[in-house]
Amino acid sequence: MITSTTGPQPADFADVRATNLTVVLRFVREHAPCSRADIAASTGLNKATVSSLVADLIDRRLVRETGLTENRVGRPATMLVLDGSPYAAIGVEISVDTVSAVATDLAGERLLTWRRSFSGGDSVNQGMAGVGAIVRRVVGRMAKEERQVLGLAVAVPGLIDVQGTVRIAPNLGWRDADIGGDLTKALRDPGFPIQVDNDANLAALAEQRFGAHAGASDLIYLTGEMGVGAGIILDGRLRRGGRGHSGEIGHVQLDPDGPACHCGRHGCLEAMAGIGAVLRKDPSPAEIQVEIEEVVRLARSGDPESLSTLDSVGRSLGKGVSILANLLDPEVVILGGYYVPLAPWLLPAVHEELGHRVVAGGCHVVASTLGHDAAALGGAARVLDSVDSGRLPGGLSRIP
Amino acid sequence: MITSTTGPQPADFADVRATNLTVVLRFVREHAPCSRADIAASTGLNKATVSSLVADLIDRRLVRETGLTENRVGRPATMLVLDGSPYAAIGVEISVDTVSAVATDLAGERLLTWRRSFSGGDSVNQGMAGVGAIVRRVVGRMAKEERQVLGLAVAVPGLIDVQGTVRIAPNLGWRDADIGGDLTKALRDPGFPIQVDNDANLAALAEQRFGAHAGASDLIYLTGEMGVGAGIILDGRLRRGGRGHSGEIGHVQLDPDGPACHCGRHGCLEAMAGIGAVLRKDPSPAEIQVEIEEVVRLARSGDPESLSTLDSVGRSLGKGVSILANLLDPEVVILGGYYVPLAPWLLPAVHEELGHRVVAGGCHVVASTLGHDAAALGGAARVLDSVDSGRLPGGLSRIP
Repeated sequence: MITSTTGPQPADFADVRATNLTVVLRFVREHAPCSRADIAASTGLNKATVSSLVADLIDRRLVRETGLTENRVGRPATMLVLDGSPYAAIGVEISVDTVSAVATDLAGERLLTWRRSFSGGDSVNQGMAGVGAIVRRVVGRMAKEERQVLGLAVAVPGLIDVQGTVRIAPNLGWRDADIGGDLTKALRDPGFPIQVDNDANLAALAEQRFGAHAGASDLIYLTGEMGVGAGIILDGRLRRGGRGHSGEIGHVQLDPDGPACHCGRHGCLEAMAGIGAVLRKDPSPAEIQVEIEEVVRLARSGDPESLSTLDSVGRSLGKGVSILANLLDPEVVILGGYYVPLAPWLLPAVHEELGHRVVAGGCHVVASTLGHDAAALGGAARVLDSVDSGRLPGGLSRIP
Repeated sequence: MITSTTGPQPADFADVRATNLTVVLRFVREHAPCSRADIAASTGLNKATVSSLVADLIDRRLVRETGLTENRVGRPATMLVLDGSPYAAIGVEISVDTVSAVATDLAGERLLTWRRSFSGGDSVNQGMAGVGAIVRRVVGRMAKEERQVLGLAVAVPGLIDVQGTVRIAPNLGWRDADIGGDLTKALRDPGFPIQVDNDANLAALAEQRFGAHAGASDLIYLTGEMGVGAGIILDGRLRRGGRGHSGEIGHVQLDPDGPACHCGRHGCLEAMAGIGAVLRKDPSPAEIQVEIEEVVRLARSGDPESLSTLDSVGRSLGKGVSILANLLDPEVVILGGYYVPLAPWLLPAVHEELGHRVVAGGCHVVASTLGHDAAALGGAARVLDSVDSGRLPGGLSRIP
């Protein structure tokens, strides 16, 4: 007997309507301002159906009519845009030295970006008290703006299982922590879903929705924080693997005779192309930012030692990226975190290695344009993704 | 503007019926013999809908009633099974030394398994003449049995683009070959679809449908032929990458100081864990089978040199598999081809390496149970997958 969890699911007419609502919502998101006739013409849905669907989306305050009309022959068409003023999506990123929070409206416009320092050495309880405090303030601000929070997603640098439990976050020293449960308690059952995910995964979602390569269906994001991890989008969706632990590229071995890694082996990607390799010492979280700025200054000034180090790190990074390119054939690999300011010196070496190593010939590699809180923004993206997949606020709702 | 090719598509009522037909067909495939009431109870579709869908599937001769009835209180229920006697799916595998052809019925039962020797050194034209000859014979046999051929898929060891063109098949010496077009001509427009895919991809589909881990949603197949390639199934579907070139693990570098690879670099997986590493020489296609049997005989007899070689190859293979496990977190990695007879000696070393190297802890690795024509069988599986996705023969049909 063959059992499969992935075949088509039986559908009924309520499903059809829910699907079509999300199709129209996505169309408006992508093409606003647009008319009902535009939607009908592009989706193939008939005009009466579109009118009914739009009315439903207006009722839910997801879409609104603008005063604008389209210049065209015949009756002027009222234009539609995303509304979403009553809603907010919240993303939070826990990293070794900071907690960041981002809130966006339904269209993905940023409502706030807050950051506070954080001590990765804190216990889960101490750490989560700090996270709870910032999240409570964000939720309070949204309440003040009379926005309904659609959901909250938290990015953690570590192995997160499919239930959202942090199995291990080595650089935070956390293990088997139900931080989603902790936050639910800290917020006293806030009535919106709280999700926990790996930082690379959420940053990849941010790139897919907001980045320079938004909409790419095969995209990999590589974090350049204390650790190096990959968020893997294939065929338009994040691929988490069987237990949710995909993307663990940091300890892939590039050279058995390479430098010692803190994992106990030698020549791991993190040891050869991580922040420690750039700084040529074990980095202290609080000082990384300043020290990376110093490396950038030296590289700019043409310091031969710095340039040589960055070339070597770039080559190792290129080896790592070539593994991703050979195995997964992405359209683009996006370098995040501290790789971004270093990209002008890393990318030439990365591209040279890729030219030698990628069997199918090359691979696009670029620096992220989303800034250091890509994973926090990705938390908001994940919440918006839920809406786009049919978890519509108000009225009839379909859980994807 | 965000454009995405992956969002939900607008649906209409014809789609709903087509989806539900495939849901019922899959249910019968997985649970036959079963009654209409079983289908209704398990899918949530109402009984009248199920009756109408079953009638349609019976009309198409995809499902038939058996004489059997279920013992239950009340009216006895007529049991349903897959019919499919009028249909066949054909898979063909081109490898360096043989061409294999497999035909199955709709239920996946093998109708024939043919193999003929093949010279990988032949030009595309010569080679395809041989392939055309065997395929014509298979199609002729199916016609004699009064079976309609649902489709044909051809497995090739090489880079195949998304259009099915063989970009490069290094061990065959083929480049930019439209072998699907060649076969269509050789068969004089046979009226069924002909697809071309990478051998590892199709073998992975065979495992997903017919193997010991059938139904696994995250599964990777590793070929052990002249080359080493990976077929990657994540979230239930084959992931081909942006250009269709995923799975190129053979030239991922395990050790920059490793043995020379025929690609010009050193320490590639193929050089360290390919057939050449097992045989300790550049293998000649015609002799591999015999030579591998000799290695197995020596290993069985406890020959220390052979055992040491297999241990070393197993360790390198373990390094390669650990990269897959760390990046993609599959439920299982399945070793195919010549790895199968060698598995008793390779797997202990593979597992030991995985224990050290996989961040999330271990990974299931097993030898394929499907035999040497897994990719040919996978061609048939790909054709059956099309049926299960809605490309139903006869009557109303939906192209997925």
